[in-house]
Amino acid sequence: MSAATTPAAPVGPVAICGGGLIGASLALALRSAGTAVRVTDRDPAVRAALAARDAGVTITASWEEAAADAALVVAAVPPSAVPEVLAEAAAAAPAAALTDVAGVKAPVAVAVARALGPAVGRYVGGHPMAGSERSGPDAADPGLFTGATWVLTPGEGTEDTALSAVGALVRVVGARVLVLDAPTHDTTVALVSHLPQLVASVLADVAADAVGPERDAVMAVAGPGFRDTTRIAASDPALWLDVLAGNRPAVAAALAAFAERLAEVTTAVGAGDDGALAALLGRASAARRRLVPKALDAPMVDLVVPLRDRPGEIARIAAAVGRAGVNIEDLGLRHATAADRGSLVLRVRADAAERAEAALAADGSRPQRVGDPTA
Amino acid sequence: MSAATTPAAPVGPVAICGGGLIGASLALALRSAGTAVRVTDRDPAVRAALAARDAGVTITASWEEAAADAALVVAAVPPSAVPEVLAEAAAAAPAAALTDVAGVKAPVAVAVARALGPAVGRYVGGHPMAGSERSGPDAADPGLFTGATWVLTPGEGTEDTALSAVGALVRVVGARVLVLDAPTHDTTVALVSHLPQLVASVLADVAADAVGPERDAVMAVAGPGFRDTTRIAASDPALWLDVLAGNRPAVAAALAAFAERLAEVTTAVGAGDDGALAALLGRASAARRRLVPKALDAPMVDLVVPLRDRPGEIARIAAAVGRAGVNIEDLGLRHATAADRGSLVLRVRADAAERAEAALAADGSRPQRVGDPTA
Repeated sequence: MSAATTPAAPVGPVAICGGGLIGASLALALRSAGTAVRVTDRDPAVRAALAARDAGVTITASWEEAAADAALVVAAVPPSAVPEVLAEAAAAAPAAALTDVAGVKAPVAVAVARALGPAVGRYVGGHPMAGSERSGPDAADPGLFTGATWVLTPGEGTEDTALSAVGALVRVVGARVLVLDAPTHDTTVALVSHLPQLVASVLADVAADAVGPERDAVMAVAGPGFRDTTRIAASDPALWLDVLAGNRPAVAAALAAFAERLAEVTTAVGAGDDGALAALLGRASAARRRLVPKALDAPMVDLVVPLRDRPGEIARIAAAVGRAGVNIEDLGLRHATAADRGSLVLRVRADAAERAEAALAADGSRPQRVGDPTA
Repeated sequence: MSAATTPAAPVGPVAICGGGLIGASLALALRSAGTAVRVTDRDPAVRAALAARDAGVTITASWEEAAADAALVVAAVPPSAVPEVLAEAAAAAPAAALTDVAGVKAPVAVAVARALGPAVGRYVGGHPMAGSERSGPDAADPGLFTGATWVLTPGEGTEDTALSAVGALVRVVGARVLVLDAPTHDTTVALVSHLPQLVASVLADVAADAVGPERDAVMAVAGPGFRDTTRIAASDPALWLDVLAGNRPAVAAALAAFAERLAEVTTAVGAGDDGALAALLGRASAARRRLVPKALDAPMVDLVVPLRDRPGEIARIAAAVGRAGVNIEDLGLRHATAADRGSLVLRVRADAAERAEAALAADGSRPQRVGDPTA
C-alpha cells in the first residue's frame, strides 16, 4: 500500500533521521497508516536492525538521500544534533516542514533558528510524551504514540503550513496535539517529570541511608505509599543525566519552588502549626485530584478482592466484572508479599459498583468496597 | 465454633476497646480463627454497627465488662486514649497481656508506662501496617491483616509471656511479626510513610501553583511518573494531621535529612555537576531496588497490550495469560485518557514471558515487551 493509493493518509513522504526508539516507532506507525517513509541512521547496525523489521520502510545510507524532496522531515536525534540534521534537510528538501522530538524545546529552538536562517519558518519543535524503558530499533512499537500527548512548540515566525503538516503527522500516528510555547513546555516538564524524578531519587536515597536496625526495618515496613512515591527512582541514571542537563534553568527553578514550599512545611511541623499543615495538605489533595485526567475524575470506588496464588485468578475476577458490563478504570495489587498474593484492587465507576459486586459475589469472590482514594 | 473446640487458636479470650476499622477488622479476623472476642466502643452507634455484622463477636456496653478476665487486651483507640484504656483493662484483667495499635510508639510507650506502673511488663506496643481509605466498623475486613507486617515494640521490662501472647495474636490473623524498638519504629515510619506523604503533597501543590498557560499544560503533560509520585497527596488531610502530630521529632528529622540531600542536588544541577548527579541517581536507583520486597526482585518484564474501550478487555487479556500458566506479578494501565483506554501493562517473571506472549498472540493481542523498569 503506497501513500498515493491511500487517501486517508494526509502526510508524506516523511524522512526520519535517527532509528532509535522514537524514530523507528514513528516510521513503523507511519507505514501502518500507509505513508511513505525513508529513514537513515549514522550507525550501520541500526540501519541493519531497521531493515530486518521488513516493514516497508525505505532505509538509506545517507541523510541527504533520505531527505531529498520529502514533504516532512523529522530529526529523531539527540538535542545537540538537531540543528545540523535539520539544516542539511532544509537544503535537500526545499519545501519540507521540519520538526524534532527532543525533550527540551527552548534551547533547541534557539540553536535551530541559528542553523536554519530564513528557513526557520518551516520548523516546528515537537515532543511526543511517549517512551519506554528500552531504546533502539528493536524496541520500536508502531503503537507507541496511540493516545499519547505530543507537544508542538511553534514560534512567532512558524508558517501555518508547517504547523499543519506536523500536526497531521501527530494525528496520523494516533497522538493528540498540544500546542505550547517552548518555555512553557520546558517549565512544565520540569515540574511534572524532572522534579518528581529528582524528588523520588532523594526519597529513596534518604531512606536507604538509615543505618543499623533501621535499614532492615525500612525494607519490612515500606508500603504501597513508599513504593508509589519512589517507583521512578529505579530509572536508568544515564537517561536522566541528559534530560536534566538539557533543561537546567527550568529544573533549577522547579527545585527552588519545591524547596521553598518544603521549608514552610518543615517550619509548620517543627512548630506544631496544624493550621498551616492542614492548609498545605488540603491544597495538595485538591490539586492532585485536579491534575489527573478528567476521565479519571468521575466518582470511583475500589473493590478489593482477595487473590489465591495461582495463574488465572486475576483473569477470573476481571472476567466476572466484564460479564457484568462494567469497565475496569484502574487496577493494582495490594499487600503482595513473598508468601501471599494479597488482593486485586479494581477501580470502577461508583454508579457501576453494585453490578460489579453482584457479579463478583456470584463468581465466589468476596469484594470489599473502599472509598475513592482520590476523592 | 468456639475457642474451646479449636485447638489451632492459641489466643483468647481477647478484649478489644474501639470498634473502628482496625478494632472491628481484628475482631472479625479473630472470630474467623475461632477465638472468643469481646468488643466495646464508647459510641453506641459503633456498637450497633458491630452488632449488625452478626459475626459472633460479643459486644459490651462497658470496657470493664469487655476486659474482665481477658487473656489479651487490645486498645484500638487514638494514641492519646491508649494509657487510660490500658490502665482500666490492667485492673479488670489482672493476668492479661496488653497491646495497642497506635501508629506512633515511643511517646505512647512513655505515657503507658506512667499509667500502668508495675503492670507495664504486660504491655507490648503494636502497629499493624494495614489500613484502608475508609474507617469505622462498616469498613471492617477480616482479611485486612493477611500478609501485612505488624510491628511489635517490646521495652526493656516487657515480660516474655506478654510478647509471646501478642505475637500469637498477630500470627492468628495472618500477619507477620516484626520486632523493633519504639524509637526505631517511629524513625522508620517517618522515613517511609510520613516523609513521602509530605513530599508528595508538596509536589502536587507546587505543580498546581503553575499559573496561566502552564496550569492546563501540567494537566495535559502529567504522565505516569507524576501520577505515581503524587498519588498519596490525594489522601484525607485530617488523618495525616494526627499522624504527623504524633511523630513530630522523627518527621522533623526526616524532613531535615531530605532537605539537606535535596540542597546537594540543587547545587549539582545549578553547577552542571553531572558526576554528583550521576552518583545520586545511581545510589537512588540501587536503593529503590533494594528496598522493595525481595519477592518482587526476580527478573521481570512488562508486557504492554493495547486495550479497546469495552468491558471484558482486561479479563480477556489476563485470561489468555492465565491459561498459559503464567502468574501476573503486577499490572497497571498506561496512557489512559478520556478518549483512549491506552494499554494494559502486565508484569510477569522474565522466565515466563515467552509463554505469556505466545498465549496473547494466539488470542489476537499484540504484546510489546519492555525491560524490567526496576532493573
